[in-house]
Parts: sequence; structure tokens; C-alpha cells
Amino acid sequence: MKKLLLFLWLFLPLTAIATEIKSPNGNMVLNFTLEQGRPTYTLSYKGKEVVRPSHLGLELAKDKHASLGMAEDDLMEGFQVVDTKTSEFDETWKPVWGESSTIQNHYNELAVTLAKEFNIPKYTGDGTAPGTLLEPHQRRIIIRFRVYDDGIGFSYEFPQQKDLNYFLIKEEHSEFAMTGDHTAWWLPGDYDTQEQETQQTKLSEIRGQMTKAVNWGNSSVAVFSPTGVQTSLQMKTADGLYINIHEAACADYATMHLELVDAETKALTTKLEGSSNKYTPNPLPSPYPLPKPFTFVSHLTPDATGLKGAMQTPCETPWRTIMVSDDARDMLSNNLILNLNEPCKLEDTSWIHPTKYCGVWWEMIVGKSNWHYTDDYPSIKLDQIDWTKVKPHGRHAANNEKVKRYIDFAAKNGLDQVLVEGWNVGWEDWANMWKRDVFDFQTPYPDFDIKMLNDYAHSKGVKLLMHHETSSSTQNYERHLEAAFNLMNKYGYDAVKTGYVGDIIPRGDHHYSQSMNNHYLYVVKEAAKHHIMVNAHEATRPTGLCRTYPNLVGNESARGTEYEAFGGSRPDHTCILPFTRLQGGPMDYTPGIFVTKLSEWSQNTSWARITIAGSLALYLTMYSPLQMAADLPEHYEKFDDAFQFIRDVACDWDQSIYLEAEPADYITVARKAKGTQNWFIGGKCDENGHKTTIKLDFLEKGRKYNCTIYADAPDAHYETNPQAYVITKRVVKRGDTLKLQEAPGGGFAVSLIAQ
Amino acid sequence: MKKLLLFLWLFLPLTAIATEIKSPNGNMVLNFTLEQGRPTYTLSYKGKEVVRPSHLGLELAKDKHASLGMAEDDLMEGFQVVDTKTSEFDETWKPVWGESSTIQNHYNELAVTLAKEFNIPKYTGDGTAPGTLLEPHQRRIIIRFRVYDDGIGFSYEFPQQKDLNYFLIKEEHSEFAMTGDHTAWWLPGDYDTQEQETQQTKLSEIRGQMTKAVNWGNSSVAVFSPTGVQTSLQMKTADGLYINIHEAACADYATMHLELVDAETKALTTKLEGSSNKYTPNPLPSPYPLPKPFTFVSHLTPDATGLKGAMQTPCETPWRTIMVSDDARDMLSNNLILNLNEPCKLEDTSWIHPTKYCGVWWEMIVGKSNWHYTDDYPSIKLDQIDWTKVKPHGRHAANNEKVKRYIDFAAKNGLDQVLVEGWNVGWEDWANMWKRDVFDFQTPYPDFDIKMLNDYAHSKGVKLLMHHETSSSTQNYERHLEAAFNLMNKYGYDAVKTGYVGDIIPRGDHHYSQSMNNHYLYVVKEAAKHHIMVNAHEATRPTGLCRTYPNLVGNESARGTEYEAFGGSRPDHTCILPFTRLQGGPMDYTPGIFVTKLSEWSQNTSWARITIAGSLALYLTMYSPLQMAADLPEHYEKFDDAFQFIRDVACDWDQSIYLEAEPADYITVARKAKGTQNWFIGGKCDENGHKTTIKLDFLEKGRKYNCTIYADAPDAHYETNPQAYVITKRVVKRGDTLKLQEAPGGGFAVSLIAQ
Repeated sequence: MKKLLLFLWLFLPLTAIATEIKSPNGNMVLNFTLEQGRPTYTLSYKGKEVVRPSHLGLELAKDKHASLGMAEDDLMEGFQVVDTKTSEFDETWKPVWGESSTIQNHYNELAVTLAKEFNIPKYTGDGTAPGTLLEPHQRRIIIRFRVYDDGIGFSYEFPQQKDLNYFLIKEEHSEFAMTGDHTAWWLPGDYDTQEQETQQTKLSEIRGQMTKAVNWGNSSVAVFSPTGVQTSLQMKTADGLYINIHEAACADYATMHLELVDAETKALTTKLEGSSNKYTPNPLPSPYPLPKPFTFVSHLTPDATGLKGAMQTPCETPWRTIMVSDDARDMLSNNLILNLNEPCKLEDTSWIHPTKYCGVWWEMIVGKSNWHYTDDYPSIKLDQIDWTKVKPHGRHAANNEKVKRYIDFAAKNGLDQVLVEGWNVGWEDWANMWKRDVFDFQTPYPDFDIKMLNDYAHSKGVKLLMHHETSSSTQNYERHLEAAFNLMNKYGYDAVKTGYVGDIIPRGDHHYSQSMNNHYLYVVKEAAKHHIMVNAHEATRPTGLCRTYPNLVGNESARGTEYEAFGGSRPDHTCILPFTRLQGGPMDYTPGIFVTKLSEWSQNTSWARITIAGSLALYLTMYSPLQMAADLPEHYEKFDDAFQFIRDVACDWDQSIYLEAEPADYITVARKAKGTQNWFIGGKCDENGHKTTIKLDFLEKGRKYNCTIYADAPDAHYETNPQAYVITKRVVKRGDTLKLQEAPGGGFAVSLIAQ
Repeated sequence: MKKLLLFLWLFLPLTAIATEIKSPNGNMVLNFTLEQGRPTYTLSYKGKEVVRPSHLGLELAKDKHASLGMAEDDLMEGFQVVDTKTSEFDETWKPVWGESSTIQNHYNELAVTLAKEFNIPKYTGDGTAPGTLLEPHQRRIIIRFRVYDDGIGFSYEFPQQKDLNYFLIKEEHSEFAMTGDHTAWWLPGDYDTQEQETQQTKLSEIRGQMTKAVNWGNSSVAVFSPTGVQTSLQMKTADGLYINIHEAACADYATMHLELVDAETKALTTKLEGSSNKYTPNPLPSPYPLPKPFTFVSHLTPDATGLKGAMQTPCETPWRTIMVSDDARDMLSNNLILNLNEPCKLEDTSWIHPTKYCGVWWEMIVGKSNWHYTDDYPSIKLDQIDWTKVKPHGRHAANNEKVKRYIDFAAKNGLDQVLVEGWNVGWEDWANMWKRDVFDFQTPYPDFDIKMLNDYAHSKGVKLLMHHETSSSTQNYERHLEAAFNLMNKYGYDAVKTGYVGDIIPRGDHHYSQSMNNHYLYVVKEAAKHHIMVNAHEATRPTGLCRTYPNLVGNESARGTEYEAFGGSRPDHTCILPFTRLQGGPMDYTPGIFVTKLSEWSQNTSWARITIAGSLALYLTMYSPLQMAADLPEHYEKFDDAFQFIRDVACDWDQSIYLEAEPADYITVARKAKGTQNWFIGGKCDENGHKTTIKLDFLEKGRKYNCTIYADAPDAHYETNPQAYVITKRVVKRGDTLKLQEAPGGGFAVSLIAQ
């Protein structure tokens, strides 16, 4: 212990002067200072103020175990600077999969060590109550800033020390003070879902829009405040700066939301009135004054008792990230989030691969067939049913015949895998009943011959893609995890789609809490031991952990294609997601709907707000190493010439060039398929259509390319004429130009196959 | 679904007349009736009223998922009787281990089917709000009474039915209306511990005694009410009736406490003022009127959200049990709790065996050595420490040399196993820090050679007994469970002592909640798959589940011998436990302290309030198939003639005869060792001493027995002269008489070895 004490008292407090640190090219400038003992930072970009003076700190919870070394005293104010260190870092690393085959990680770092002194009553050690004698103690934290040319990250570090070993977080108070009434693309802050439609308003309009935003589409679950929003939050200033706030490397910590202070804010976290959302927040009042309007303050997802986290030093928070540029394309090409994550921790990654797949899925989402097998029982107990004796209702999709049809389709069209949902028993009463033992992840329904189907698939060069819906009963899933992964290994599955529909069991917990974030990563790590890739749906939104654990090949964590069958999403939805949800990692958006009017083949009156050419564009604009062809095989067979693009397109890349971008308007990107000279270009636009001219100056000099253009027909329209497309073929070379017209809600896709 | 509806409406309501059912010998009489639609029962014994009219029912919680089939309407009142069935049952079964080799299960049963009709707004099915048209619905429950000659059990059953598939329990309201101001032996009701000292007061004095009871010994954790008490609750009436209330077969349901209504009760569950107990209850107000004073009402242990249970039909509550007799010995020989549990579910039980053990334990409890290995770190992260490089503090008890010493001792003295606590890494900061990843249950400290020690033990015919302290971080334990059991199988362990010290993680949950009760049984079931016996400490108090899962060979769940090192327990403590804690199953009390003044060999000033002869008696009076010789080998070597009894005594029995008993005063029992003609007799008394005359009329006619009597010396006393004992040997036969004098806090032990 002696050594530690020496360390603690060695440095004398420095005078609290402001410290400035610039990004490598000097465009991004961060200033740190102590404002009356509170850590404070500002940020500017190319001389423009981006973040006004903003406080940093954590409020700690009082705990019954305080006397055992649990810290209670807040880490908010009363600090002195005892050390500042600056350094530069520059490396280039290779992701296992990604938008490019190398990524530069270049930043300047400022690490500020802060000390706070406080007195606590001295214990005599004889078991009697403490007397009036006060004993001086000290706690140290480090705030670490990394300043990149296109953004910053900062995190709080808590070194192991005598007076700070364990603590409970009541709330993190990281402020992001905006300079004005920016335009923002936001989702209602919610402890359990990100499946809402994005709202586009001024900051000052968030409060007025919240109730409508929450009620819209009925997907909100646990909204906590009339000005609470989720990250990644994309903004645009009146003078053309793009700002994005998110986080990186959120592992064993609660997911961060942002709460806006506006003119009406009296206290952070108050109940949202007049919404269909059932959550009643139980705010823990804070003694600290509200910051100025237009300031976002961090708001962590609570556990069942309302607290935000249990920490043990040495530890650190996730990185809080701010991306800034005057060019919207930089928001998409930015690698800030990945760079702030730790390098890959898996020694062998040879078994991780990009995957194109189809699946027995869309027809169930649309309502034409079912996940469950029988209507015999009002409820199911897994250990009490002899499944060979129950009466099937005849609409069970995951049956041998249908799965073989999908396997044949995948094999014929070069798709790698076939997802089959509803293969395992328990779907009769699976969701939202507070039922713990919902699934066993091992027992197939009687009409799903797991051995035969895997053998059949393998004989055709195809794999099945496993599905583990947990119904958010996480204890049940963890109890079966090892056996479920062993089953996958036995039959030759190497990827699992997990699902977390419904309220978390144990009751009171939330999808984005510290314990759930720990759970999701636990599953990813356990899967890695079995050489299994994970694609987690309804789990926490990603924060770049796929760099460290690249078997996390996908997440949903946003409003996916399924909503096209639940009332639809706006045509600009896919022109927003790359700016927001995709910042933290790839999304299993499940694109590829060709028959957009669902009533053409089902009872479902919903329809997808996209053209066929627009659907093709998504394979480029919505980057993912895992891409689904979500529509039915017969629909692709009907439009086989358009489907050729899905057959051809890659999903892993050497290089990506964002040619055009504007949030909620349009995105155009060119990508070079990994290990080849082939390029693919995709453009997607909103409901207004978009004209673009693409100069092919990224092609290899002197090489010719067979160019196939999948474009909206002149009269195409996402609502009235979505299936109108034109396919054009020509030979092109570097320097040639493509002129393309995207229809309202449409897009285009181009393949450039090197000769 | 048609069949189910038919069933529901087939029976017309019967007139609600009282139904009487008697026990096989007619002594116990139960009456059931509906009192204004509320199920009501009374109980009498030999013509004396035992339970006055008492209501039965469950209050359900409103839930956000009500529209999905979650029941909200209470199951409290408005019932009609639609069916009553009576039947008789008589069987004799053989426990795997126990106080006798056969047990008779003989009862008369009354099953009352109750229906409740209610209306709910009819949904049109088109997704719009429900209209004003009400639709009639019906729910059925069954209350099943089993009436034995020495007690009753009742439980609520919830058949699977259209209108009752899932429900959340707000509270169970089972009443037990006492006839007067009985004497009670009680523990403060607590959601997390039963390690308090028993209080002996009149019912009317419970409220006045509660604060003192809670503060005493500082072991209370989560007390919920000034009149809340635990079960099993032993009472005695003014006219000599013994009454015990407990429960049987509490598996996936919250542990029941009892809340007494007294003259001061305004509402059930209010905060206890003026206590050091930190728990603040958050009572859910009930609309139902309070019963009359002297009535106990069930109070279930809540989850983190305050609710008491999540149920899915078909299901049932545990049995609520009332044992009654005018002979205190019947309280101890009663098999009601075991009989109300389901028969053994393990097909092969050949690997389950009674066990005598010693262990590296007491010297750590006393404070002379430690569980942990190093003082190098203020806190520990398991994956960040190279244990071969840390500096040992030199007081680590679970080291090779010491464990070999214990193995030698066990081998020499015929003990089956050696418990070693503190063998695995993580003890440096294990308790009450809200630390999830406390132990991995697999990595030994550097000075514990797990292979060598197991090999060494096996070479001497001894096994090691595994220790899994979970620190109440149950998710962490479940994550490691399979690997931990595999490790045990690998090295040849066949029994584990588990521990649940500290607050439950996830935070907000309690030791006795539904989810925790599920956890404990999950561990027992998983252990059975590995042929591992379980001895769970700090887990829920048992309710006879060891009949169904006989690999659950022990529990602590009460104030054990360790408290003799924490300030001590009263001398009458062990004369109460068999009436209360032991009703549900055996306790790993860890008896056998010979050197009772701990200051003789340690810095600990505490002392055990018992004589050596009294310590020997506990091996008989505190029945368990698992018996520890808890003191140090050198202490036993010093008193080797007395230790001979521990070498000789059995811990599995063909027959047990309680010769004398009075709660908190004395217990005398004779037991015949299983598969032999040998008998052992033990007598234990309180601080007042006790004289007894034992007629040996249970011995086999015509056979002679070598009788060894281990008695308190005439001047023995638990405080002043605890090590004074006299060993006498003679030959006895059936019909002979033994006259014995037990010292204050003393007892005696007798072995009768058949010639």
C-alpha cells in the first residue's frame, strides 16, 4: 500500500490554467480548463466554435456499503489539476472486414489528471462509531481527450487507488453545449428501443415534437424525458457544420442518452405527458445547477433500482464522441468510433467472413405464415409438451420443404447462408408474458429436420444461419448458451442471429443498461470461443466494439426493413441511418424488397416506400458485412435481371469513397470489392428524387470495366411505380462520367467488373 | 379451444355450504366455506379451535401487458364453489437418506374448485379501442387441502384456462387467524437472512420486541415490517397446543413470511423505525380490509420492482403448512413437509451418501487465518492478475501443507471428506462491493495444488469437499457453473458447499425472491446431472425439496456455529432450531466445538455457549446427513476420548424416536443407525440444565449392547467449565434405564453398539 500512497501525494497541484490541444492538421481545437473546480472543455473547428464551455463529471450514489470502501462523494467539482500529458499517436491498422482494408488512427492526446481532496470522519478501528476527527483523503481521475482531424473522443478513467475502488453511478453529467439552434435528426430517448422513425427538427422544437414522435408508429417503450434523445445524434448548424454526438467502446457500462436543456427545462428527467409510452421515470434529483439552454447532458440507462452503474477501479467510461466537419461526406467516411475501440482481441479470425443470405423470414413478418407450430395450447411449458403429438396449424414456415426451397435458391444464386426463424419450439407464447423459460434453443419443431437440412445445405455449398430469439429472457439464454452453441458446432452453423424482443427479464431491467450491455458482449465472447459470428437484433446500438470482437458482424438496433410491413418507414429513412445508427457499426437492415406492395401477395396492407433500384442501392449505401436478400425467392425470380446485382455485389471492401451526402436527402458511394479490381456504386435518395453525375476517376488507369447500371425508369416512383427500372450495360474506363436520375424514393446501383 | 370452453361452463355453481374434512384418525378437522365470496377455512385439533375463520386469496398486479392475456383481476373475492372433491391417500415411501428408512404419507384431501366471473370490455378485433359492450369471462382456481393426523397443508392451483394464462402476484393473502396470545419463537421477517437469534415472546409482544430483535447481533438485512416474522414459526398455546406454520415445496415461487395483525396494525407492511436495518419497504397498498388481531397474513418476498411473482398456468403455490399437536415431540417427528413434496425425481441416487467431514474453515471464521491470499491490491480483477507473481501475506489457510494435515486427520478418524474454503482466487475483495465477476470457481491460489491434494486425499480414502462462494453474484455463478462442475468431476469432488454472502446481484433482488428460489434449485438440478451433492449456505430456508432432489443434502439458512465466533448464540438456540429451521430439511450446523473459549488459541474474544458433551449431543439432536467436525484437529486430538463419539456416530438412520422435547428447553432423541443394530442417543438442553431418565425399551429383545455414555461432569457449565465431561462404559439390554444429568448449556451422547 505504501507505494500507492506515495504516488497519490507525489504531485503538487498545478495552477488550473487552460490547456489547448489541436488535431494533427490543426482544424480541431480542444480547450480544457477548471471552472471553479469543475472540469470544463470547449471545441472549435476551423476557427468556429462547436462546443461552448461544457462541464464534465459524475454524480455518485450513496450506498449501504459505503463503509466498506464504496465511494459516495461526487466526482463533479472541487478538482485540482495535478498532471497534464500530451502525446501524438499515428498508426494504420487492418480491420477483419470493413469499408476499407486499412484504417488510419491519427490523433493528439491530452490526459488531464485531476485530484479531489475531501475529509471523512476517522474510524478508531475499535468498532465504535467514528468520532469528530476528520481525516484527509484524495481521489484522482483522468480525463483523456483524443483529438482527430474530424472529431474528438473523451473518456473518464478511474485508476485503482486507496480511496476509490468501487462506486455506484447515480448519473454521468457530461455536457455538450451547442452554439445555437441547430437542425437535428433525433430519436426519442428510450431505455429499450431505437426502432422509432427519426425526427428532423430544430433543437428548440424537440420538446414540442416529442409526444408526437413517441406516439408515432407505437414503437417507443421507455421514454424518460420530453427532451431526451438517443445517440448517435446528427446535427447541422445554420452555417453548414455537421456535428455528430455518439459514444465508442460501450462495453460494461450503461448506454448514454442525451437530455437537452431548453428554455422550459426546470429539472433534468421529467415525465413525458400525453404519450402512449408507459414508462414513468423515477428521477433521482441532482443538486447541480442546470447548464444553459442548447446544452445536451448525458443521461445513462438505469438498472431496476434506478442506478446507472456499478464500477470497480481501474476502469473507464466509454468514449464520448463528437464528429465535426463542414462536409457531410466526412460524417460517413469517418472512422473515429472504430479508432477509439481497442484492437482485435481474437487471435484467430480466419473463420469470420462476410455473408450474403436469404431466409425464411419476410413471409412471417408480413403475416402470411407463422413462427409457431400449433394453436392447441393457450400457453406452453417446454417440458410438458410432446411435440410429436400436437396438432400443427399448417402455417408453420420453418418446415423441411420450404427450407429446402430456400437452400436451393441460395445455392443457385451464390448466397452463402439461409436464415430460418421459428425452427425451435416455444414460439406459441413467446413474447411479453414475463415468462422466463421461453426457449431452449435446441429442440426443433417436428417438421424441421435439423440434421437433414444442414446436410442438404452443405451438400449444395450453403450454410444455415441459426436463430436465437431470447424474448429478452436473458438468464434463460445464458443458461442454455453453451449447449446451444455446441448444437450449432455439431450441425455446422457458424453464425447466429439473436433477438431481444419484449421487456427484459429480470423485470425492471432495460435493454440498454450496464448489465444488458455486459450480456450482449458476453454472448459475443462466448460465441467467439465456438467460432460463431453474431448478428444481434433489438440489442444495444453498437459503439464500434466490432473492431475488438469482429465476430460481432451485425446488429439491428434501429428501425429495419420489417417496419415496411408494420406501416412503413419514410423514404428518407435510409438516407439518415448511415449518419446516425451506422456510426457505431453495421446494421442488418435486411434490404432487397422488390414487391413493395405487400397486398399483392398477402393480407398485409402496408407497403415499402422504395423503388427496386433504390432497394439495390441499399447494398452499397447501408454498409454491412452481412447482407440479406430479404424478399421471397419467387419475387426475385420474377425480376431476375435486377436480382443479378444482388448476386454480383460484394459485402467486404478495399476502399470506399463517399461521392455525395446530405442527411435525409441523398447518399452516393463507390466501393472497391476486397481483393478485386471490381467497383460497385450505389445512390439512394429521399422522396424528392435526386440527379447525380459521377466521374469515374477512381478506376484503375488503363483498365476497362464492364459497367451495368440499374436505374429507376424515368417514370418510377416509390409509391405509384416502384418496379420500373432500366438496366443499361456499357464498357467504361477511368475518367468516364455516369449521369443518373434517381426517382422519388429511389436510387441506383452500378457494377463495374474489371476486364 | 372448444373443449376448454366446454369444460369451463359445464358445472353450475354449487351453493356455498361449508365443507368439513377430517384427518385419518379424526383428530384434525378442517372446514372450508365461502364468506361473502371469499374462500375461508378453520382448523381444529381434538375439538380445540386452532385456526379461526381465515381468508385465502391472491392480489394480482396490473401489468403493461394485460391486453396480451396477463390477468389483472384479483383472485380474492367474488368466488363460487363449482366442485368439491374428497379423497384418501396412504402410502409408505423410502427416502434416500433421513431420520427413518420409511415414511408414511397418509392424508385425506379436499379439493375445492372455485370460479369467479367477471366482465371485460369487448374488443372488436379491428384494432380500435374497446367499446362499452362487456363480455363475460370466468376464472377458476383450486384450493387443495391435505389433512393429516398431525397437521395440514393447503395450496392454490391455477389450471391452464382461456382467461388465466399468465399473472403477476402483488401479494398472497393467506391468513392464519390464531385463537389467542400464544407464545411464539420467531425471527424478524427479512428478505435476505435467517441468521438472527430467535425471539421468544407472546404474539402481542412481537411489535415491542422487533427493533431490539433486529438490532441484536446486527445480522438483519432487509426487515419489512414491525410485525413481520419468518417461517417456520413455532408457537405454543396457553393450554398446551403446539402449532407450527411453514411451507412445503417452495420451488419457483417467493419465500413466504408472515405479518401479524395486532391491535396497532393500521396497514400491512409499514416501515420499522429506529432500527439499524437499512431496508425501506415500498408497500403496495391493498384495498382489502385487515383481518382481526392475532392473525398472521402471508407476505411474499418481492423482486427488484416490488412484485412478488410471475406465474404461468398450469401452476400452483407451495403448500402452506400448519402442524398441530398437544405433544411437542410430534413437532419433531412430523413428516408433513417432506410428505407434501413430490417424490424423488432423480432416477439414479446411488451416488448420494451421508457424509462426515472436517475442514479448513473454523480457524478462518475465528480470524486466525484468511480465505484470501495477498494484501497487494486494494481490489482485484480476476483477468488482470498473475497469481504466481503476487506477494502472499502468509496467512492463507487453504495451502497444501495445511490441507494435507486435514486430510491425514480425516483419514485417521474415518471422516469422509475435507472441506477447503478459500482455495480459489478472488477472496481479496469478494463481498458487498456490487462486484459481479467475483470468482471463477476454477482457478486455485498458487499454494493450493488441486490435483496433488485430490490425489493425496483419494490415496487415503478421503475426498475433498468443494467450496463455491458466490458472493451472491448469481449471474456470475450461473455463467461458470458448468465449467465449475466439470472441474469437480475431473478431480473427483462429489459435493459442493455453496455460499450466498452479501447482497444479491443483480441489485434490488433478494435472497428469498422467486428468481433466487429458482436459482438455488437450478444449481441443485444442474449438480445432479454431474452427480454432485449440494450444501447451500445463505440460500433460502428449505421446504422439503430434498425429498424431490435428495442431492440437496444440506442448507445453512439459519444462525450456525459460526456465530459462536461472532459474539455467540444463546444456549437454548439449538433447542429451538429443530422446531423451526429444521422443519424444512437438514441444516449444516457445523457442530463439534470442543475448545469453546476462542481466546485460548486466537485473538477472538467470543466463546461458544455449550459444553463438550453438549457439542456431541448435536450430532443427534440436529439431524443432518451431512455432519461436520468443525473444530481444529489439534483440539480433537487433545480430547480424543470424547472425539471417539464423533468417530462412531452415524448420520443416516433406520428409525428415530424423540424421547423428550420442549421448545427452547430440551430435546432428547434416540436413533438407530441405518442398516445396523446400533443405537445412538443424544440430549441437549438450554442454560438451565436438564435431568432425564431414558428407558431403553426400543433396543432389540435379547441383544446386548456396549454402551458408552458421554456426559457432562457434575460441575460442568457452558460458561465456567465447558470441558468437564465423564465417559462411562457398560453393557446394557432392552428395558435397562439410563439416568443422565445435563449441565447448563450441556447435554449428553450415548452410543449403543450391538454385540
